[in-house]
Amino acid sequence: MNAPLKIASLQDAALAARVQHRLDHLTKPLGALGRLEALALQIALVQGRERPRLEAPQLVVFAADHGIAARGVSAYPSDVTWQMVENFLAGGAAVSVLARQHGLALTVADCGVRHDFGIRAGLFDAKLAPGTADSSRGPAMSRVLCEQAMDRGATLLRALPGNVLLLGEMGIGNTSAASLLMSRLTGLPLADCVGRGTGLDDAGLARKLGVLGEALALHAAAIEPLDALAALGGLEIATMAGAVLQASAERRLVVVDGFITTAAVAVAAALAPAVLQRCVFAHASAESGHARWLKALGVQPLLDLGLRLGEGSGAALAWPVIDSACRVLEEMASFESAGVSERVGEQA
Amino acid sequence: MNAPLKIASLQDAALAARVQHRLDHLTKPLGALGRLEALALQIALVQGRERPRLEAPQLVVFAADHGIAARGVSAYPSDVTWQMVENFLAGGAAVSVLARQHGLALTVADCGVRHDFGIRAGLFDAKLAPGTADSSRGPAMSRVLCEQAMDRGATLLRALPGNVLLLGEMGIGNTSAASLLMSRLTGLPLADCVGRGTGLDDAGLARKLGVLGEALALHAAAIEPLDALAALGGLEIATMAGAVLQASAERRLVVVDGFITTAAVAVAAALAPAVLQRCVFAHASAESGHARWLKALGVQPLLDLGLRLGEGSGAALAWPVIDSACRVLEEMASFESAGVSERVGEQA
Repeated sequence: MNAPLKIASLQDAALAARVQHRLDHLTKPLGALGRLEALALQIALVQGRERPRLEAPQLVVFAADHGIAARGVSAYPSDVTWQMVENFLAGGAAVSVLARQHGLALTVADCGVRHDFGIRAGLFDAKLAPGTADSSRGPAMSRVLCEQAMDRGATLLRALPGNVLLLGEMGIGNTSAASLLMSRLTGLPLADCVGRGTGLDDAGLARKLGVLGEALALHAAAIEPLDALAALGGLEIATMAGAVLQASAERRLVVVDGFITTAAVAVAAALAPAVLQRCVFAHASAESGHARWLKALGVQPLLDLGLRLGEGSGAALAWPVIDSACRVLEEMASFESAGVSERVGEQA
Repeated sequence: MNAPLKIASLQDAALAARVQHRLDHLTKPLGALGRLEALALQIALVQGRERPRLEAPQLVVFAADHGIAARGVSAYPSDVTWQMVENFLAGGAAVSVLARQHGLALTVADCGVRHDFGIRAGLFDAKLAPGTADSSRGPAMSRVLCEQAMDRGATLLRALPGNVLLLGEMGIGNTSAASLLMSRLTGLPLADCVGRGTGLDDAGLARKLGVLGEALALHAAAIEPLDALAALGGLEIATMAGAVLQASAERRLVVVDGFITTAAVAVAAALAPAVLQRCVFAHASAESGHARWLKALGVQPLLDLGLRLGEGSGAALAWPVIDSACRVLEEMASFESAGVSERVGEQA
């Protein structure tokens, strides 16, 4: 399982028992499908039914720019944010390829990219501002702007069909925002939360640490999750957090990607702890700090492929495994139906 | 990568450089797709071309019975072997579900199941004998029978289309055969090589260890790989080893599943070391000993999902990730083609 399963009600307990009984009578040794069995059980509980079905999965890439990028915390210039949005829309990015492979609907949400895209197929306009302010000099967003961005995320989510949300993101500078949120929410020292992002060298990493240290000190009073999100976060993280809260309320499954999407989920879970029960953590990113954050959240990632790309690429790669979990629960024969003998000593 | 890549020729070195150059100019930070990039490079080298393509992937479940099962080394009776073959053919087993999900052609090879199936769609008759003899009392197979089984495997492989072989197996008692081969081939003590298989309890595990100790002592002279395979192995393992050698000679990609398929590959690699370069090790099984064996072979599994089912279920689960590796290499845009800025300091 991802987060340890919490059985919230007698109804859930009865459902879990029925699903476990079915899993235990499929034609395989007890527990032999490992994580797949835990996933099947989790998804059944998310959907509140014994035979869960994954319908019209939606991969949303939440994109925005970051004022703090001007301080040289990324290996890439801010223009890469809008250029990569164009690449998503044109189908040439990694996540475009993977979404196509798996039949995932791909939407790019412009949550605050410093570029005018106009009206475009596949692009959802959630923009309230052309990027955040530099959080090392002042709050990234006002509290009001932050809550508006979360509302936009909820609105976006409500407009999407299906019962699965896969999270992706794009935003030059957003590992900085995520590191700041990680340090603030977990209480871990900044050095445990900061990595090379898209590929900083040692000098760049030292500079990033210095800048983020300034930001964290400046916003020492921003302790509550929403205050921290506004002061330190990003428009795509806030919009995503709103979408995750809405998805959780609607009992959709949420597939979390890497470091930045974990930031959005961590904020959402700080506001509504049940969120974690809705989430599958797709993979452990190679971005320093991600594995540590997952551990702090008490969750276990599904894959570990050394990815550090974001975009939702890890969520897309994990998708077929999640799909498999539901399919084996739905389609496998039982010992009885297939006429296969049970264990020695358990035969009728 | 799986096995550390060995560049065998100047031609390969030039090809590897071209593939790496392409990977490094796709619209992502250098190396950000982690294992996928290593996989793409490996598959390009297996196929000897810059744009590898995976064609008509074949999942073969090699099935046979084991004389040693009569000694009570499994939690299930031997009849489960043929019953599960029926389940594969009827589409109700885990691997049937996963093969269907991913469009993998599924063939069951009867390498020595103690049952008469007649002629059946999806079943390849490779049977030379209705199971092995009990290796704790004498050789499992004669050397001649073992080589005939390997020939059948090569024949089967030649009859299959495509350029990918995914390995699966079924055979009550075959974790015992694999454990014996592991201990003999690696020199590791038996206790490091023996696990609970389909679910032995502590007493069953102790019994299994004792029986396997007898077998290993009885065949102390069977040191050479083929002698060990004949004395300690199984008909499905020998047939599989023959298929793997043939697949390797034809430069097909081989996707290795769990503990038993690793036994077949380890024997094949002992005879032809280049085999490992053709293999993707799909996952680390929860069967005790598997992770240790992969380490001894110097290879790194792709997934770790706590599976211990066999059948090829792990190979099938890893398939979409392998497919993704080729797709991103083929379909992703480059920085130049997408008009995305390169890293700061690397712009033209």
